Amino acid sequence: VKYGIIGVGAVGGYYGGVLASNNKDVHFLLRSDYNHVKKYGFIVDSSLGNFTIPKVNAYSNSKDMPKCDIVIVTLKTTSNRQLSEILPNIVKKKGIVFVLQNGLGIEENISNIVSEATILSGVTNIASNKIGPGHIRHLDAGRITFGEYFLHYKPAGITENMKLLAREFEQADINFIMTGNIGEARWEKLVWNIPYNGVSVILNATTKQIMNNLASRTLVRDMMLEVIAGANKCNFSLPVELAEKMLDFTDDLKDYKTSMMLDYKLKRPLELDAIYWGAINAAKSAGYNMPILNAIALQLEYLNSNNK
Amino acid sequence: VKYGIIGVGAVGGYYGGVLASNNKDVHFLLRSDYNHVKKYGFIVDSSLGNFTIPKVNAYSNSKDMPKCDIVIVTLKTTSNRQLSEILPNIVKKKGIVFVLQNGLGIEENISNIVSEATILSGVTNIASNKIGPGHIRHLDAGRITFGEYFLHYKPAGITENMKLLAREFEQADINFIMTGNIGEARWEKLVWNIPYNGVSVILNATTKQIMNNLASRTLVRDMMLEVIAGANKCNFSLPVELAEKMLDFTDDLKDYKTSMMLDYKLKRPLELDAIYWGAINAAKSAGYNMPILNAIALQLEYLNSNNK
Repeated sequence: VKYGIIGVGAVGGYYGGVLASNNKDVHFLLRSDYNHVKKYGFIVDSSLGNFTIPKVNAYSNSKDMPKCDIVIVTLKTTSNRQLSEILPNIVKKKGIVFVLQNGLGIEENISNIVSEATILSGVTNIASNKIGPGHIRHLDAGRITFGEYFLHYKPAGITENMKLLAREFEQADINFIMTGNIGEARWEKLVWNIPYNGVSVILNATTKQIMNNLASRTLVRDMMLEVIAGANKCNFSLPVELAEKMLDFTDDLKDYKTSMMLDYKLKRPLELDAIYWGAINAAKSAGYNMPILNAIALQLEYLNSNNK
Repeated sequence: VKYGIIGVGAVGGYYGGVLASNNKDVHFLLRSDYNHVKKYGFIVDSSLGNFTIPKVNAYSNSKDMPKCDIVIVTLKTTSNRQLSEILPNIVKKKGIVFVLQNGLGIEENISNIVSEATILSGVTNIASNKIGPGHIRHLDAGRITFGEYFLHYKPAGITENMKLLAREFEQADINFIMTGNIGEARWEKLVWNIPYNGVSVILNATTKQIMNNLASRTLVRDMMLEVIAGANKCNFSLPVELAEKMLDFTDDLKDYKTSMMLDYKLKRPLELDAIYWGAINAAKSAGYNMPILNAIALQLEYLNSNNK
């Protein structure tokens, strides 16, 4: 089984590295880190044991890559427009594209690019950072939740393609769980991601700063309830109690700058299409208007467009 | 007719100055500017003609002031808690308190403090600044809209007390219009004040910056429509077209930092109770939830409480 990794940052670098270190045949598409990685390989500092990959199959152009059985997409979603050029070069005709990105509504586009491929879709709560070219720091175990994507997140059950990926992950000791309803898993993740990412950028606040102020804490809860209502309108089933559960979870978390806050500070584009508009548009299609999310998304669009 | 002016800033300094320069008997309660004004008086640079008041009836303590027939309240609403001490000292038993402040839901408290007084209520679109102690710059004519306040802004028609104030204003050449429905006038003013004041603080944006970005412009329009809907739920009558009218009006305005943005930059408390929660709570009492305004108000509360 030949792997391609598109987007070699905190997530792609870590999981690609783990697969390669378990003797999988992994091919990495790199941009700015290409020369460094080609020369020095990968270093992964991991709580589960450090490892290095001295010799990496590194490419700077997808045209030079072999056709792969499993292509793992771990780009920031803001770079997804590159996929229309990359994927046809490297996905085998009946291959698998594994979309391991945040947000909602990203798979449909990808399935249009490589219409005969299988689309698997996943989210992960891994805590890792890229701390330099070819250098990943993995902080906390984390787990991948994945399922097969069908149009509009129609629940898919456990498919043969999922079992294939599961066997591969088992061989590489990657922690995962399969779901027959990846749409629901994505919405559930957004119950946390939408409020904390957005509010942290607008108020320039860490998770603790948000939680320790009654006003911002109330806002986060209101946003969570709106996401939960949106999911339910889209025929997924998220309990209202999930909001309190996530607030409690965040109270127990160490203080934290969200990924969107870091992107904003580094003047990178914000993942608004996948994280905000994906949910807002899905709910709108189901006849549900999300007034708070819409207002927050518009503020983020303003900040994003002025953050050059 | 004896006047008391509580809050000698851009608005109180200007109108109090105009009344005094027209030989009205005006008594000013001052705080930090007391010594300066006592010594040097007022200077008003006005587009309608400059004038000075060399000798001002200035007081640093309301206990030293005479009882007044008409007390004009032009404090920032964030200082309104001071009124429970001040007003009983200076309002004649059957006197008039003229509340010339922004926002909604401020009069009821005042009428509880001086329960036998008449409460007149007004808004003004005057453009003036206090540029130093005892020094007001008046930029643009402006007009006062006022009416008599009855509980819950019950429309009052044109009352004798309003006619009394009207005659006084005529004698002092103050531009005004009377309304039988001051609640509606206050809501109408909030259609502009709520979105621009709030959004300017959160996005650190001038009016032009807000208007020239599609996202923030859309947000402002959404907020205007929510305010208009809130007013109508409270049985006032604001047309939906008012939103487009105010957007056009703002497009034609020269670039502008809102008063709340200036307050925020100067680390002064923001007028959130009067401008935001007044409207939100009034709408809630009428069974209408304002999701966008509520979310924006919570963000402003966070920023306000961290702006020391």
